[in-house]
Amino acid sequence: MKMHSFANDYSEGAHPKVLELMMKSNLEQNEGYGLDRHSERARELIRQWIDRPDADIHFIPGGTQTNLLVISSFLRPHQCVVAADTGHINVHETGAVEATGHKVVNVPGVDGKLTPEHIQGVIDTHESEHMVKPKMIYISNSSELGSIYTKSELQAIREICLKNNLLLYMDGARIGTALTCSANDLSIEEIARYVDVFYIGGTKNGALLGEALVLCKEELKEDFRYLMKQRAAMPAKGFILGMQFEALMQDGLYLSLAAHANAMAEKVSDIFREKGYDFYAEPCTNQVFPIVPNEMAERLVRNFGCLDLIRVDDNNTCVRFVTSWATPQSSIDELRSFFL
Amino acid sequence: MKMHSFANDYSEGAHPKVLELMMKSNLEQNEGYGLDRHSERARELIRQWIDRPDADIHFIPGGTQTNLLVISSFLRPHQCVVAADTGHINVHETGAVEATGHKVVNVPGVDGKLTPEHIQGVIDTHESEHMVKPKMIYISNSSELGSIYTKSELQAIREICLKNNLLLYMDGARIGTALTCSANDLSIEEIARYVDVFYIGGTKNGALLGEALVLCKEELKEDFRYLMKQRAAMPAKGFILGMQFEALMQDGLYLSLAAHANAMAEKVSDIFREKGYDFYAEPCTNQVFPIVPNEMAERLVRNFGCLDLIRVDDNNTCVRFVTSWATPQSSIDELRSFFL
Amino acid sequence: MKMHSFANDYSEGAHPKVLELMMKSNLEQNEGYGLDRHSERARELIRQWIDRPDADIHFIPGGTQTNLLVISSFLRPHQCVVAADTGHINVHETGAVEATGHKVVNVPGVDGKLTPEHIQGVIDTHESEHMVKPKMIYISNSSELGSIYTKSELQAIREICLKNNLLLYMDGARIGTALTCSANDLSIEEIARYVDVFYIGGTKNGALLGEALVLCKEELKEDFRYLMKQRAAMPAKGFILGMQFEALMQDGLYLSLAAHANAMAEKVSDIFREKGYDFYAEPCTNQVFPIVPNEMAERLVRNFGCLDLIRVDDNNTCVRFVTSWATPQSSIDELRSFFL
Amino acid sequence: MKMHSFANDYSEGAHPKVLELMMKSNLEQNEGYGLDRHSERARELIRQWIDRPDADIHFIPGGTQTNLLVISSFLRPHQCVVAADTGHINVHETGAVEATGHKVVNVPGVDGKLTPEHIQGVIDTHESEHMVKPKMIYISNSSELGSIYTKSELQAIREICLKNNLLLYMDGARIGTALTCSANDLSIEEIARYVDVFYIGGTKNGALLGEALVLCKEELKEDFRYLMKQRAAMPAKGFILGMQFEALMQDGLYLSLAAHANAMAEKVSDIFREKGYDFYAEPCTNQVFPIVPNEMAERLVRNFGCLDLIRVDDNNTCVRFVTSWATPQSSIDELRSFFL
Repeated sequence: MKMHSFANDYSEGAHPKVLELMMKSNLEQNEGYGLDRHSERARELIRQWIDRPDADIHFIPGGTQTNLLVISSFLRPHQCVVAADTGHINVHETGAVEATGHKVVNVPGVDGKLTPEHIQGVIDTHESEHMVKPKMIYISNSSELGSIYTKSELQAIREICLKNNLLLYMDGARIGTALTCSANDLSIEEIARYVDVFYIGGTKNGALLGEALVLCKEELKEDFRYLMKQRAAMPAKGFILGMQFEALMQDGLYLSLAAHANAMAEKVSDIFREKGYDFYAEPCTNQVFPIVPNEMAERLVRNFGCLDLIRVDDNNTCVRFVTSWATPQSSIDELRSFFL
Repeated sequence: MKMHSFANDYSEGAHPKVLELMMKSNLEQNEGYGLDRHSERARELIRQWIDRPDADIHFIPGGTQTNLLVISSFLRPHQCVVAADTGHINVHETGAVEATGHKVVNVPGVDGKLTPEHIQGVIDTHESEHMVKPKMIYISNSSELGSIYTKSELQAIREICLKNNLLLYMDGARIGTALTCSANDLSIEEIARYVDVFYIGGTKNGALLGEALVLCKEELKEDFRYLMKQRAAMPAKGFILGMQFEALMQDGLYLSLAAHANAMAEKVSDIFREKGYDFYAEPCTNQVFPIVPNEMAERLVRNFGCLDLIRVDDNNTCVRFVTSWATPQSSIDELRSFFL
Repeated sequence: MKMHSFANDYSEGAHPKVLELMMKSNLEQNEGYGLDRHSERARELIRQWIDRPDADIHFIPGGTQTNLLVISSFLRPHQCVVAADTGHINVHETGAVEATGHKVVNVPGVDGKLTPEHIQGVIDTHESEHMVKPKMIYISNSSELGSIYTKSELQAIREICLKNNLLLYMDGARIGTALTCSANDLSIEEIARYVDVFYIGGTKNGALLGEALVLCKEELKEDFRYLMKQRAAMPAKGFILGMQFEALMQDGLYLSLAAHANAMAEKVSDIFREKGYDFYAEPCTNQVFPIVPNEMAERLVRNFGCLDLIRVDDNNTCVRFVTSWATPQSSIDELRSFFL
Repeated sequence: MKMHSFANDYSEGAHPKVLELMMKSNLEQNEGYGLDRHSERARELIRQWIDRPDADIHFIPGGTQTNLLVISSFLRPHQCVVAADTGHINVHETGAVEATGHKVVNVPGVDGKLTPEHIQGVIDTHESEHMVKPKMIYISNSSELGSIYTKSELQAIREICLKNNLLLYMDGARIGTALTCSANDLSIEEIARYVDVFYIGGTKNGALLGEALVLCKEELKEDFRYLMKQRAAMPAKGFILGMQFEALMQDGLYLSLAAHANAMAEKVSDIFREKGYDFYAEPCTNQVFPIVPNEMAERLVRNFGCLDLIRVDDNNTCVRFVTSWATPQSSIDELRSFFL
């Protein structure tokens, strides 16, 4: 019997309500390139939610594309972006950022997060024209290790950015799970005030594909659609993305989907905790990183499709379980059975 | 009353059969990044159709993205691509190709098409290391002016490519309308033998989004998925694209949609021909370019959303009508009424 | 007997006075990267000459490098540079500008020069985000066809730039020959007020290598040395460039060398004029383009190394003669003997 | 009194014999772009010296330019170069390599050198298409910390490169000091057989500027001059570079200059050793890294222009002394006096 896969949070299609709206509007004629009424409505709903009526919002097909677009659009050629070593742009995008001409300067993250100390360290060691110039800070929330930024952590990073004229960019591929995590003390309105640019991930939270990029800072807005088009990030049928966010932004659907993912993840971590296993990073959002004996790791990978992340020591391996809006209760039961 | 828009062939969503398959498979768990069974099945169907069991096939979200990916993947830094001046990559992609580092050398097209003479001209005038080196020929079929390449024209271009060690790339955003055009004498199997790489457009022929890129030449296949990832052309939910092509490739759906678009276009051109108007390019596929008095052009733009292409002389303007799989008979009636 | 070569204006080393200063200072210890006293003195002399005490001046090893550096430093990714089709950046730099990500939009030049009408044409046809956005105008003075910009021509271009928020960049590889041409009515001070950035060419006017780039516009100055370093345009021994311009800027050496080149060119054109030959472009500076019978063209190429530029018609060819500061009177005698 | 500066090895002009040849040939007419007889002769002398009659040799103005040219010419877009964290390309070139689109993957160096273990580590952790693909190994000899590769070390790196289809590139900005170092057991002929591409540095060993790039591997040769031109690395007066290498390659001048630099460095290190100071890296070539009390470091920087490299602990600082072909005995005396 095929078990549920915990490989990632993009194994299924879209939430039924998203598909429903797409079906209903399918034969309408819409303006191309994101200039349609659905995209406009979705933008309006997002602006209200984040309480930034002045924000520019663009819908981009995917996360790597959003990252490379944001970074290459706002940096001059000699400027770099700073990320944690675990940051998605640093390792898992096949050099997409460098392919646009910019160095990613990385520092060791703390549970996948950047700290003001690390940022200051980069500033201190990049003081001459023989080195790239730090201009943008990249953080992901929730991070690649499932951790989240607290309000005071984000404020501290914002301060160092303001002081050093750095742009602050939050990769929100999993921002829903950050916002609905029990440990979270940051509201979306605060995020939208503290960062210069961020995105609200759709692909990993109920959409077929699509990310809502939010430009909070006035200077970043000029000519952005030119840059989207150049990076192939302005699909002809932009309304496909607009419709999905229109659906996700109604009746709290977006957050409720993320909350479900977190709830399922908690059940996963409970199982491992009960069995006495430690975690590579403290469970918090929809990614869980139990450390288990090598042999068990192999079986978990085989049965549940989870990722074999890292050999922690000679005998133990950290594996990754990811839950999503689509994770059913039955998958938890299957996992529980695994230990019987 | 709102009239049907002839602005383009990407105003509606997907053909119902495409949506149906997506709905049915929506809650399945699929491998990410195009490694799923739907994508695999779609690849198999395409390989059979084009009679190239050896071809590598990749699904890419959009046309501009496919173009920049293909060109930047197969050229060394000093090599250029040659296109007709009307070629999509030359004007309408905001410098997406140049942003990857390559010059687009353009020559005047004949009805939107490249000729062997033009290609030879570029070869002859690029003979030293102080100039870029021609390495790829870009043609679109059907072209941006609605014209198509005949078998002998394509063979002649292929010959000059072989002789000069040039790669031949066909942009098939509208390949369906080329294949189903009454004047066409080229089969898909022949195209897949004559060109080195081409794509079968989904966005403009029944899909929500997506293009099927076909790598026919062995040397082009190596590491291509790395390049896709780097250019953000490998969506997490690749199965979304795979499912759509799976549906389009069944029961001749793809060609029947294109044939409908052509049939509707013929009705459009008949109307203008009957009224005695000339065409900027001889009507052939799903784009029609009547030349009408300026005042009438304005009204057509206003009523039917068609594009005001070019002022032909002081009194006359060429406008563009585009039909698609979704163009209803009622739109033809509306256009006919316009002239009453 | 080997004849003098009129192939180009970079066949010899440096003017003796330049070498003399280099010899004299050879064993001094100087700061690296252009921060030395010679570079500083040369900058001061240039600022006085051009009457722009506020200008930033940087010494760059070569012309192609200066062009790619200027264009890539001041444009955002979606912006393009506009040049005449004969512009050096358009054809003769192996796509160096495109390799930094920017399209060169070219228009037919008039005698190698851009006109306000052509610039307006580009502005008019690049009005949407689906096309690159014009941001910089590239002109060369003297041009690749030896012609020069008059004061009113340059003012007209400046006006259209101001009106459309375009940067005006003058490639001054041969600016000396423009300034000392008998038809010239532009002073260096005026050029330095009308353009935003230009360079004073050393390589083709007395130096071993090196161009003095002048940033006139305040906004262009920030972080420029970072950009130089990144494009490998900040040589370790920058003082080598500084010393050469220090020598060239003393006692009117720079202009006197260019005046010599022009005087020699006039003698070349006199010879052809006397013989009744026409010119491809009216002789003006140090490049002369006589149109001669094909057979004679072949012999001129063989004997004088001049460039076989273009077949004008079935029977006639345009060849290029270039003179320089180093062209001796004897070369004129040789050419005259050719016709005996 | 102004003391001698030990800041770097590019504070003076060229060795007198180099200048002499340039003076003598100054008014000759030479072919442009490196196609002249001096460059040809210099190439021949280098081919004989390194015993690679089949090598292609190109003269490039500077080291950063050579690095970015080599890396961008031989990698496909998704491929990366691997370097020690101290590697020049990693920190001190303002992202010049990334500006051509390629990631520099760095690993901790051992005394500034890469080890096979580190290279294997990179290979092991870059195993999927979501990450860049290692394709080139960058090593510098002597390294940025003055160390050199032994024969067995270089052979081991070559083996891992062969096994993994990686290109091996040696940055030879200071190759002379490596070859003439007393600890060296590698001949230039061996280097030219073990690496795929390397350069013989002129700027830091007797030339005004210029590096001789040696392409040893057949596949790397095609179209290389196109790539040089595109990266602005093919100066119009290429003969300036050719002449300098012609002089350096005669009568063993190149190695004797490097031997002098090493001898002077040994005297510097002797002084510090006698005083009981340790070194950050074991002295070997022309860079010496004594660790001294902070207060003394400040005075050394002030008096001798040496670089304040790194704060080793609360009380001690590592400073860098660099010697060259031009370092006079008197400078050693001055340094000795400092300690009196």
